[in-house]
Amino acid sequence: MPAKEISPVKSARGTPFAPGSTLGIIGGGQLARMIAIAAAQYGLKTHILAPEENSPAFEVSAAFTCAPYDDEAALRSFAASVDVITYEFENIPAATADLLVGLRELHPSPTALATTQDRLVEKSFIAELGIETAAFASVPDAAALEQAINLIGLPAVLKTRRFGYDGKGQIIIRSDSDLAAARMLAEQAACILEGFIPFREEVSVVATRTLNGEFAAFDLCANEHRNHILDITRVPANVSSDTGREAISIARRIAEALDYVGTLAVEMFLVVENGVERVVVNEIAPRVHNSGHWTIEGAETSQFAQHVRAVCHWPLGSTTRIGDVEMRNLIGSDVDDWRAILAEGGACLHLYGKEDARPGRKMGHVTRVFRKSSS
Amino acid sequence: MPAKEISPVKSARGTPFAPGSTLGIIGGGQLARMIAIAAAQYGLKTHILAPEENSPAFEVSAAFTCAPYDDEAALRSFAASVDVITYEFENIPAATADLLVGLRELHPSPTALATTQDRLVEKSFIAELGIETAAFASVPDAAALEQAINLIGLPAVLKTRRFGYDGKGQIIIRSDSDLAAARMLAEQAACILEGFIPFREEVSVVATRTLNGEFAAFDLCANEHRNHILDITRVPANVSSDTGREAISIARRIAEALDYVGTLAVEMFLVVENGVERVVVNEIAPRVHNSGHWTIEGAETSQFAQHVRAVCHWPLGSTTRIGDVEMRNLIGSDVDDWRAILAEGGACLHLYGKEDARPGRKMGHVTRVFRKSSS
Repeated sequence: MPAKEISPVKSARGTPFAPGSTLGIIGGGQLARMIAIAAAQYGLKTHILAPEENSPAFEVSAAFTCAPYDDEAALRSFAASVDVITYEFENIPAATADLLVGLRELHPSPTALATTQDRLVEKSFIAELGIETAAFASVPDAAALEQAINLIGLPAVLKTRRFGYDGKGQIIIRSDSDLAAARMLAEQAACILEGFIPFREEVSVVATRTLNGEFAAFDLCANEHRNHILDITRVPANVSSDTGREAISIARRIAEALDYVGTLAVEMFLVVENGVERVVVNEIAPRVHNSGHWTIEGAETSQFAQHVRAVCHWPLGSTTRIGDVEMRNLIGSDVDDWRAILAEGGACLHLYGKEDARPGRKMGHVTRVFRKSSS
Repeated sequence: MPAKEISPVKSARGTPFAPGSTLGIIGGGQLARMIAIAAAQYGLKTHILAPEENSPAFEVSAAFTCAPYDDEAALRSFAASVDVITYEFENIPAATADLLVGLRELHPSPTALATTQDRLVEKSFIAELGIETAAFASVPDAAALEQAINLIGLPAVLKTRRFGYDGKGQIIIRSDSDLAAARMLAEQAACILEGFIPFREEVSVVATRTLNGEFAAFDLCANEHRNHILDITRVPANVSSDTGREAISIARRIAEALDYVGTLAVEMFLVVENGVERVVVNEIAPRVHNSGHWTIEGAETSQFAQHVRAVCHWPLGSTTRIGDVEMRNLIGSDVDDWRAILAEGGACLHLYGKEDARPGRKMGHVTRVFRKSSS
């Protein structure tokens, strides 16, 4: 694809993009698909850039470019055709983000990407804010593993610094018998060793911040994983209102420190010691998040609509929750239940248009909203 | 576009179309756009056929064909590329419907189209079901006008039998001074003269029926028009529960008599005489309907999702209403209020992606749901 001449940025940074503008989205999976649908409902056009043919988001966008993330000509052409750019996942090459940010507004910023792409940078950033994380130590290579274990203690979790998700690139070290596998991982990639947090449950804050500092969070989500993949999100999480407020306050401090624009998720562990609850931050996702899918039907504004609003410099919508909510992912062959789910009154089925229901692949989700009696 | 070889229909009529199937939609306006979004949320692909470049629905579909409705080669190619066909408006040429129904399942049927395209056929059909309509008489030409007026009395409304919408092709005859204009209309096209119904308000039933006879209606809608264009829909309509049930029962009889598959709207007048309410049917829209847009946020399943379910031979969803609802159309320059609407907590803005905000043009709508206190 030839590079087009880039037209100059049309307006000052922070000027709202009017309906009819084109939102460019990097990445073509289900998150981009749901952002594109939310954008369309606001009268925006979308242009998706993703390397995979038949990307789910291509089916709901006004335009798409099928190209690798490092194809500079394609990126320039893409930037020229859109008004503002966002992305659905954090593993965009830094060079790509740096190129795009020179051509068009890019939200969230390359700083948010750089901070969250690398677990060591991310943990250091959080700790520097005075926010509790697991104890952590850098493991640049296998030779550094022993010293890190001496520092952190066991059990601990060895993770690659980059590109891990859904449990990939992680090994739990409980005893010396796990050391051989851990050394192999540390030989392959720079790692971080994290202390093991004895948590009661995993929770997340999904929230949105605008360029001028407006901030709105959804209620705290409780997340159950199966095989390291999110299985069920229930809202509200079963925590005290103080803990809920504290979790949201932590997410806000993180968003502000990143000068964040868009929707983000902060994953946390809920720890209860001597009956006292507290949250410990695990990681930051600089994007819409699976644990926020319930907001499509379960909140007055969805996480996707909020993201679009923030990226377009629009005011945020109401995050008021409509009832108690349960969201279940449809992983792999779970999707075969589509007929039974459709036959269930009130269950909201979402499918992502993926053809191949491989084990572990997120094919869709189903949301159930339990409203207070309205009679 | 060359005609492709048509593959044979894949399965017996009534077999559910699985997610991943392609829904063909004739027409590319906001109704098609909202059907396409609903289909995408269920993992379906859509292919839009519409004559206008930059049709709003093109922006959210996996494929589109820009061709006139009577382009036989384009229609054949379109049919070959989809699994099942529906449409967003009733003024599809009969020859187009007849061609398509021979190639793929088409829902609603050509019978539903033929019955509702012509006001005389429509009124006769409704009257034959024993359902009350305004008194009506055929006015095939200007010479027949006087006799029709003698039969119906004044005031009365002269309407073209075909292609009228939003008040176009209509003249109210109150006295002899309106006769000259009426004669001009009757000279231009075959007409129908309808008695004037002194109504308290205009209401509509939006409902969905499946091939196997499953039927689900939303609550009765009260509709306010401005310059003959729908302005505001409020739900529930302020009628007795008996009247609400009667209105839905009438819609069901109409749907059954048409062997209807999909979402339809039946527009009615609410008449109150001596304190007794009754409904008089005005017209049938064989499609999703503007007075049902509130269901996107205001009901557990939207009219668009219901339409997709019916057309794909899936079970219907819950039509339970979530609260009291008000839907306002954004007509022409109303759309300039988008920033104020976005700034209003809980207002749900929908824009259709149309560039030119001409007077009278439906540019978007805003829905406000007033939930019962959930504390």
